[in-house]
Amino acid sequence: MNKSNKRSNQKSESFTLAGLKFATCCSGTKYENRDDLLLFVLDPGSHICACFTASTMPSAPVIWSKKNVRKTQNIKQKIVLLVNAGNANAFTGKQGQIACENKAQALSRLFNCDIKNIFFSSTGVIGEQLPHHDIIKHLDLLRSDLSDSNFEAASYAILTTDLKPKTYTKKFKIYSKVFTISAIAKGSGMIMPNMATMLAFIFTDFATDKKTLSTMAKKAVQESFNRISVDGDTSTSDTVFVATTNKKGLELTKDKKKKATDMFYKELEATMIDLAKKIVMDGEGATKFITVRVKNAKDIYRARKICFSIANSILVKTAIAGEDANWGRIVMAIGKTQIKLEIKKIKIYIQNFLLCKNGQGISAIDEMSLSKALKKRNINITVDLAEGDDEFTVWTSDLTEEYIKINADYRS
Amino acid sequence: MNKSNKRSNQKSESFTLAGLKFATCCSGTKYENRDDLLLFVLDPGSHICACFTASTMPSAPVIWSKKNVRKTQNIKQKIVLLVNAGNANAFTGKQGQIACENKAQALSRLFNCDIKNIFFSSTGVIGEQLPHHDIIKHLDLLRSDLSDSNFEAASYAILTTDLKPKTYTKKFKIYSKVFTISAIAKGSGMIMPNMATMLAFIFTDFATDKKTLSTMAKKAVQESFNRISVDGDTSTSDTVFVATTNKKGLELTKDKKKKATDMFYKELEATMIDLAKKIVMDGEGATKFITVRVKNAKDIYRARKICFSIANSILVKTAIAGEDANWGRIVMAIGKTQIKLEIKKIKIYIQNFLLCKNGQGISAIDEMSLSKALKKRNINITVDLAEGDDEFTVWTSDLTEEYIKINADYRS
Repeated sequence: MNKSNKRSNQKSESFTLAGLKFATCCSGTKYENRDDLLLFVLDPGSHICACFTASTMPSAPVIWSKKNVRKTQNIKQKIVLLVNAGNANAFTGKQGQIACENKAQALSRLFNCDIKNIFFSSTGVIGEQLPHHDIIKHLDLLRSDLSDSNFEAASYAILTTDLKPKTYTKKFKIYSKVFTISAIAKGSGMIMPNMATMLAFIFTDFATDKKTLSTMAKKAVQESFNRISVDGDTSTSDTVFVATTNKKGLELTKDKKKKATDMFYKELEATMIDLAKKIVMDGEGATKFITVRVKNAKDIYRARKICFSIANSILVKTAIAGEDANWGRIVMAIGKTQIKLEIKKIKIYIQNFLLCKNGQGISAIDEMSLSKALKKRNINITVDLAEGDDEFTVWTSDLTEEYIKINADYRS
Repeated sequence: MNKSNKRSNQKSESFTLAGLKFATCCSGTKYENRDDLLLFVLDPGSHICACFTASTMPSAPVIWSKKNVRKTQNIKQKIVLLVNAGNANAFTGKQGQIACENKAQALSRLFNCDIKNIFFSSTGVIGEQLPHHDIIKHLDLLRSDLSDSNFEAASYAILTTDLKPKTYTKKFKIYSKVFTISAIAKGSGMIMPNMATMLAFIFTDFATDKKTLSTMAKKAVQESFNRISVDGDTSTSDTVFVATTNKKGLELTKDKKKKATDMFYKELEATMIDLAKKIVMDGEGATKFITVRVKNAKDIYRARKICFSIANSILVKTAIAGEDANWGRIVMAIGKTQIKLEIKKIKIYIQNFLLCKNGQGISAIDEMSLSKALKKRNINITVDLAEGDDEFTVWTSDLTEEYIKINADYRS
């Protein structure tokens, strides 16, 4: 581990998870004086699954990992996951694939495991070739540094323009047995200069089969990371890995097993929601955490489309930044979805203040109280469509001058 | 006309169009010391048609005018068009409709014409009731001020946050006869605080039937105003009116008539393209005029979707503002459309510099020359898909800190 990146080891112990070891170092490929390589090694017997970006221009590590996740890994061998920050290895053509291949060969020899047990994530600039030889040079060092503590260093090693590291750990009981879930993420709010890349690595010791884990991971991603607004800009590298070391099992009847799995799912979902919200609030220049909720919709698709239209509207975001209850912009964002609605039924609330109904604004608003409520850090926008029972929620941040400053200056 | 708003009458003569009169004044409903009401009166025998916003939350004047455009107006009577700035009369419920009804009754009496010969446009804040009685009070004054000159005053009266008025006028010959096309528009670049409202009023003396005029107007809007990026935010009030006073006809054979119509269409399209580009460059804080072109696409829909994805990407816009040839962000914007492409075939150019091909970046770029080229005000982004013959072009502007500043501060 790079000296200057050494951080307090306090609290790290709670992240400890049987069967998981990790190490960080500075590869020297992009950053100086900070770690930018992170290696996870999972004991034989582990399972790993993942959700990837919907971009049709996925990065080389996304292509690589997607292929390997689909294959059945050799359960008797270790699973290895290598992350680097500073270079996304995206739009790098054949050479990008070769970089993955070469790194995988080296790791396969080092950890005596099949190529298909090896996974990658890369985040950083697009279109530059990954100096993979420099990375491979550091693998021996990483192996010798492997430990089950200092998750904090790991959380720092994957950052690019993030302002803060994002970690989550919890011990929870299921049928009197204590389990652990530990996770780190990177990604920065509304939109990041670095293609809005969002990475998350979630580990548990709760034993489950790969198929169940994969189903749970997909569902939880829908309820968390897919509910944060990155303003429509989709990264070439977004990935969420979920792995279990399978170290702690429960001997249960079929019925109880179902209940235990449900209880674990709730923990997994809570982990992802916590990290998703941390990503939103780490937005460049973000000063507000905005929850957009559309309720009483005919179906979830309508609710979802309207939610994202509001959350992604630059005009809504700037109004919230300016602490202005400009609900006309919310009306605009609803209208542009081109979803047919009964305008008269719609009610719009900001911070629980009803601002319009019957297709027009409400004149008797306590402007003083509303103005005070808008100064809060957490802003709630609720749209009641009064047409059904479905609802959807999206989390986003506001848009400030600071954001533009950071994004116009990035890279050059 | 309000005194302080009197501007030089120079050049205005060229805007003069037989059969069209107009007048402006300050209604006192919103602004002080500037005109905010504009009345157009077209001689009997005129035709009017219009294209409206796709928003499902259209303003009261949009609902009103849409209904009247569909009906056949009484050709023996005048056509009256009243525009106000400062209040959009949008999301104002039944009262908003009543405001239109009352204004129309007053105008109908004043100009002795049917209600269905009366049209409205309103631009400004959403959700506030239009003080239409104050507007009606000024109609007499407007009538007495009607004149066929000072188009400049008219172009100023419709502005909200625009930095500059937008006008266009041209005299052109068809089969040796001279015709005129004169137009004004409002709307401000990338996105305007005022719901991105874009209004255009285009007048000619070229005689044509209503159906032909309507078909030409729709086509020209597709080639102009529908090719500028307002970042997905759709106004509740966008409207383009096209009218002819029918004062100048041509006695032609059927064959020649077709040719004459085609020649006129070109003039109409050129008018709209000119105004559309002026709107883009009047963007708050905009420093660059960006042309995004996708060529050699399989079909126009793919080209269009990719064009808008690039033009609407905040990350692309901020990169151009920062004069950074960050083509990775263009790759990201292409990828997020989820259109399946042969990545290896794609070529991306900025200012005619080829930046990537064969699925990866080009190393031998003359960075010095590229950097110099990016300092220009006009930026060209071209994506060659090499999969077909279709293409599409979109015009947009960059995104600067100044923009956020204006938008966060608006209204409050």
